[in-house]
Amino acid sequence: MHFGIISTGPISAEFSQAIKFTDGADISAVFSRNAESAQAFIDQQQLQATAFDSVEALCASNDVDAVYIASPNSLHLSHALVAIQAGKHVVIEKPAVWNPAQWDQVWGAAEKHKVLVFEAARHIYEPAQKIVRDYLVGKKPKTVRLNFSQYSSRWDAVEAGEEPNIFSLKTGGGALVDLGVYPIYDAIYWFGEPDGVRYFPALAPTGVDGAGTLVLVYKDFNVIITIAKNAHSDAPSEILLGRETLRLSSVQGIDLVTEYTAGDEQVLFDSKATPGSRPLSELMRFEAEFFCDMIQAHLEGNFDEARVNRYRSLTLLSRSVNEVCTNARYTAGIFFENETLEISG
Amino acid sequence: MHFGIISTGPISAEFSQAIKFTDGADISAVFSRNAESAQAFIDQQQLQATAFDSVEALCASNDVDAVYIASPNSLHLSHALVAIQAGKHVVIEKPAVWNPAQWDQVWGAAEKHKVLVFEAARHIYEPAQKIVRDYLVGKKPKTVRLNFSQYSSRWDAVEAGEEPNIFSLKTGGGALVDLGVYPIYDAIYWFGEPDGVRYFPALAPTGVDGAGTLVLVYKDFNVIITIAKNAHSDAPSEILLGRETLRLSSVQGIDLVTEYTAGDEQVLFDSKATPGSRPLSELMRFEAEFFCDMIQAHLEGNFDEARVNRYRSLTLLSRSVNEVCTNARYTAGIFFENETLEISG
Repeated sequence: MHFGIISTGPISAEFSQAIKFTDGADISAVFSRNAESAQAFIDQQQLQATAFDSVEALCASNDVDAVYIASPNSLHLSHALVAIQAGKHVVIEKPAVWNPAQWDQVWGAAEKHKVLVFEAARHIYEPAQKIVRDYLVGKKPKTVRLNFSQYSSRWDAVEAGEEPNIFSLKTGGGALVDLGVYPIYDAIYWFGEPDGVRYFPALAPTGVDGAGTLVLVYKDFNVIITIAKNAHSDAPSEILLGRETLRLSSVQGIDLVTEYTAGDEQVLFDSKATPGSRPLSELMRFEAEFFCDMIQAHLEGNFDEARVNRYRSLTLLSRSVNEVCTNARYTAGIFFENETLEISG
Repeated sequence: MHFGIISTGPISAEFSQAIKFTDGADISAVFSRNAESAQAFIDQQQLQATAFDSVEALCASNDVDAVYIASPNSLHLSHALVAIQAGKHVVIEKPAVWNPAQWDQVWGAAEKHKVLVFEAARHIYEPAQKIVRDYLVGKKPKTVRLNFSQYSSRWDAVEAGEEPNIFSLKTGGGALVDLGVYPIYDAIYWFGEPDGVRYFPALAPTGVDGAGTLVLVYKDFNVIITIAKNAHSDAPSEILLGRETLRLSSVQGIDLVTEYTAGDEQVLFDSKATPGSRPLSELMRFEAEFFCDMIQAHLEGNFDEARVNRYRSLTLLSRSVNEVCTNARYTAGIFFENETLEISG
């Protein structure tokens, strides 16, 4: 099966590398606003692909079965709709869209046009996730503390009075949507939808959240998610279960999973890599393989019940994550450009 | 100067040991509900002290300059008032009293009777605290994550349907008052009073909080405090400052303070002990020395301006901690026995 790629940024390069390790899949088309950039990307990544400077043209190509969308977040919606209306399956980088209204537009269009849409939540396809999910069966969490704090060099620009995209309300930036999406996916994947959500942002001068803490309230416990793009932390994430605690090296790209008590410790998963050192392309192979299997099966009319169910649960998960993330943002008073109009309209 | 001790529990034994290392101070009187227990404590601790089975009698003794109160939390108030009215200085184990109304009673009585009252927040007198406070001067925190999660063996009783004191509303139990008091002291000592407080408890069947997360909202950042008596965690506490993060081995009995960045690490304080291994009596020496100095100076009419100021700031700190802790509890709907009546009255 053949992927068309929208945008030629670093994440698209990683995805191209990941696809190279996926049997039966390749990149056949690359879009950039100017064709030269698209061709440069093709050359650099050593792809057998056609360069496009029109999203519509790429999506109309018969050489494209599915479109991978990694354009700036604020363009995901329109690019996804073009691809879907052209009858292409779609993989959208996370966060896929800004809010549930946009989400419903995209997934609604996909249903109408009988194509698949995936949000590229790469980390839930990692091998460590199965270890964690299996471990949690029958367990009752007491408290869950997730941490994703990664200093962005663009924060320096914010402190200098500028407004880079990832810290701008115009382009849907901020810590919650950029980093929060990972631990929110984890939490809902592991524990289901929370009963309540409360977000405590630390606002940047640009109006987005430079850091923040999200509390997901469940019946018998809380999930506390701390995220920061203006600060760094290597502290692990933890699921406290009583005498035992499950320690994860991180909320994504999980390299080490350990169960420990006051006196003992047991490694349940070890990627053998230095924590945090694996390249993105390696971490993206798991999702790439999964998306290709699903899309290939669909193309061949072989989308069986197991795949139907898996697709449905991933769709519900993506919707829940979007809703939690958006509710958290709105109740904290963080609205992206024109978003207030959308709501009141 | 001579201390009378109220109650003969394990914490009193630790305090007795701590006092042995304090120049010019000793234990002259010990109270227990029966005199034999008091005498047994005196023998066991090898004290030159008199046994009392009446708090009033102990407080009336001319051999007692100050009273250390480590009775069950629910008795602190009445014991403190007896001691103060007898003209004795008082050190009350934390949490000193249940709520600001009780706090005002005790500290108001002390002012009237011209005696000193200290809440025994031992951890703020530790050497590591000065390192942390000095380090934070001029720094702007981005996010602060404090963790104090210590599995209590009494939780097993709760799960078996019982109601041990530390998990009972009748005796003022729960994670927030028992463990939360440490990190709340830290936060207010380091950053001052928060602008807002929100508590997310995980309620035990007995009605108290078995675990919980407290969010202290400051102007530009939040302090996230996770506490648990029904679960265990050895995760460090952290003050995220940007590229640098200050890592503390714990919120009390701090053995290791490290500053780290994405690529570097520097130890700022090291007790040289295995983290968490120092006995309480050792950790209590710092506060014991301080309380004795203050009380001795007061007894000698030598309570100079520096001491007046220090006493005032500690008093305000104790009041703030009590207020934050109580607000958190009330807004989470956790009321101790008869406390609702007190409020409405």
